[in-house]
Amino acid sequence: MARIVMKFGGTSVGDVERIKNVARRVAAEVESGSTVAVVVSAMSGATNQLVEWCRQVAPLYDNREYDTVVATGEQVTIGLLAMALQEIGVKARSWCGWQVPVRTDEVHGKARITAIDTEALDQSLAAGEVAVVAGFQGIGPDGRITTLGRGGSDTSAVALAAALGAERCDIYTDVDGVYTTDPRIVAKARKLDRITYEEMLELASVGAKVLQTRSVEMAMKHRVRVQVLSSFVDAPGTLVCDEDEIVEQELVSGIAYSRDEAKITLVGVPDRPGVAAGIFGPLAEAAINVDMIVQNVSEDGRSTDVTFTVGKADLERARQVMDKTREKLDWGGLEADPAVVKISVVGVGMRSHAGIAQKMFQTLAAENINIRLISTSEIKISVLIDEKYTELALRALHSAYGLDAV
Amino acid sequence: MARIVMKFGGTSVGDVERIKNVARRVAAEVESGSTVAVVVSAMSGATNQLVEWCRQVAPLYDNREYDTVVATGEQVTIGLLAMALQEIGVKARSWCGWQVPVRTDEVHGKARITAIDTEALDQSLAAGEVAVVAGFQGIGPDGRITTLGRGGSDTSAVALAAALGAERCDIYTDVDGVYTTDPRIVAKARKLDRITYEEMLELASVGAKVLQTRSVEMAMKHRVRVQVLSSFVDAPGTLVCDEDEIVEQELVSGIAYSRDEAKITLVGVPDRPGVAAGIFGPLAEAAINVDMIVQNVSEDGRSTDVTFTVGKADLERARQVMDKTREKLDWGGLEADPAVVKISVVGVGMRSHAGIAQKMFQTLAAENINIRLISTSEIKISVLIDEKYTELALRALHSAYGLDAV
Repeated sequence: MARIVMKFGGTSVGDVERIKNVARRVAAEVESGSTVAVVVSAMSGATNQLVEWCRQVAPLYDNREYDTVVATGEQVTIGLLAMALQEIGVKARSWCGWQVPVRTDEVHGKARITAIDTEALDQSLAAGEVAVVAGFQGIGPDGRITTLGRGGSDTSAVALAAALGAERCDIYTDVDGVYTTDPRIVAKARKLDRITYEEMLELASVGAKVLQTRSVEMAMKHRVRVQVLSSFVDAPGTLVCDEDEIVEQELVSGIAYSRDEAKITLVGVPDRPGVAAGIFGPLAEAAINVDMIVQNVSEDGRSTDVTFTVGKADLERARQVMDKTREKLDWGGLEADPAVVKISVVGVGMRSHAGIAQKMFQTLAAENINIRLISTSEIKISVLIDEKYTELALRALHSAYGLDAV
Repeated sequence: MARIVMKFGGTSVGDVERIKNVARRVAAEVESGSTVAVVVSAMSGATNQLVEWCRQVAPLYDNREYDTVVATGEQVTIGLLAMALQEIGVKARSWCGWQVPVRTDEVHGKARITAIDTEALDQSLAAGEVAVVAGFQGIGPDGRITTLGRGGSDTSAVALAAALGAERCDIYTDVDGVYTTDPRIVAKARKLDRITYEEMLELASVGAKVLQTRSVEMAMKHRVRVQVLSSFVDAPGTLVCDEDEIVEQELVSGIAYSRDEAKITLVGVPDRPGVAAGIFGPLAEAAINVDMIVQNVSEDGRSTDVTFTVGKADLERARQVMDKTREKLDWGGLEADPAVVKISVVGVGMRSHAGIAQKMFQTLAAENINIRLISTSEIKISVLIDEKYTELALRALHSAYGLDAV
């Protein structure tokens, strides 16, 4: 029988009625002949309350104790869901991370899964029980409870699917799949039937938060087929899978945007060796992430402009760090602009097809949208534009790449 | 260094401020040179919420899943208290039941502790850490979480004190000790400095709920000295200990009462062998506990009256059970009276002193209080009287036995 891992997030198990609803979903999967392991998060709101208590007790809390406290959220849900399954005649039992065990490293608060022993689970599944496993938690080398960091239940589910050799890992969430772009902005956005791991990673990293990035990396590494689908609507979602599984690969799969960007330009920087290190060294030391970087050589060949982006929340700090470099680097002026957005076109098709970047530039030019910065990776082209053009750019590009729903 | 186990109930750890308060109490004990293990309950209200969820999900829930859910209450508290201790500079770490481990039998929902392995705890204590241990929970032979039943944290604390060879087990509660009688009724009630295990057991069983009965039995068995004291007032409480430790033993230690009694009298029961079995067999089968029993032989020697008490909540059921015996036992009539109270005089001194019962009867007679039933044990005399005389009887007896505070 095919093994399936089903994962339900906090909203899906937010109260007793929803837990019963999840039980019915699981029962239907069992009914259809699958062997099922379920991974659940804490009831929505529960983790926040626990974290708040920790902060109130000790602002600089011990992460080992933090893990002991917050892991209780998932422990409550697994017990309740196992009961709900039994109540409708489905054999089930709950598993805390330490009971499986889900082994992790010792980095409390944001541990990584190192191994999952499936011997006990295998026996339980073979006996016809649904295994209800706590997401987000494991046991460290010291025998203490660890947690994977916020959103870690997706990673738990994918890791469990890999360990169990599951045919698929279904991630139930409050959206019904992965879209070509944000449907709140582009009405003609389409739900994708399939998308590659690589594309999903690029989309996640540029702000389309459907799956936790680490869970997609893990799925890609272990070739776990992941389906994103709705807890509330009974319909197929989007399958995140290997390129081989996608017969008719589109050139472009999706267009993402991120408003969490701010642009800084240093004007009139003397053009000599060591300038880049002089700028980005101090930013790295201040733990400020820099995303896009462009350096223009000036006409006289002696001075240059350097432009880069940082997270919006880091803008003021970045400016302060730069001010301290002024004397040493002898730059002429600093321009900061938080009103920018990063638009990214993603698709594995662009590996083998030229002209995709060109279409992006032409489309934006036709709308009179000025491009401030450009960066590219193997399967992604990102541009930085003025924030006010976000909707216009997304709609124009979505049409230009033929993504509009018919 | 002397080892001390400190136990705090749900009210004492009811919110973040109270948890910080408990941390200061523990710190003071550490400061005084003790090696300390702390046992805590769930924050007050937490367990009720968890139990409520279980009931809503599945009225006939699986006790193994119930244990998984409700054990989270204590797990939250141990993490928070360990943090609170660290925050004020006291080394501490939390221990779930399964981490210690506290081994229990397999009776989920009301398990009994079978053994506590102290190897890991000993190491932690030797390293100067306060061990913050979850009360009420353990791990069963199947590797699953068990709970000891409501109020089980007292038992956890005493069992831990026994296993650690602790000098004392301090139970912090919302009363400041054990009193000669209920101070809400008798203003002159006195706090006892010391009381024997046997007396404490008799007081607990007749309605003076300070410690869970099972915890006192365990303390007596393992000769663990238990102190009952207030979480909120900094003063010595009452030490529950061996008779040898009590230098000036009073004849009577306390007077307890229980309003949870109802009286049933069967009138005109033919006096022949097998009558008692015919009455009390069906009650036992219906799981109705019978407490006091008296049988009067009638004047003609052929019929008799049988009077007994049951819990007030069981009165109607007991009456129904009796009605079914009427034909077979051929009794004449049934009188039921829920308006009764059981008053008990307790003291190990009565083993060696005559006249203690006589003083009780005389005192009640002097107040014109009619005694309906009498029962005795080695260190206790109980009488059943009309409920309306409760206060009068308690005050009169308290004075008569010289227990009034000066």
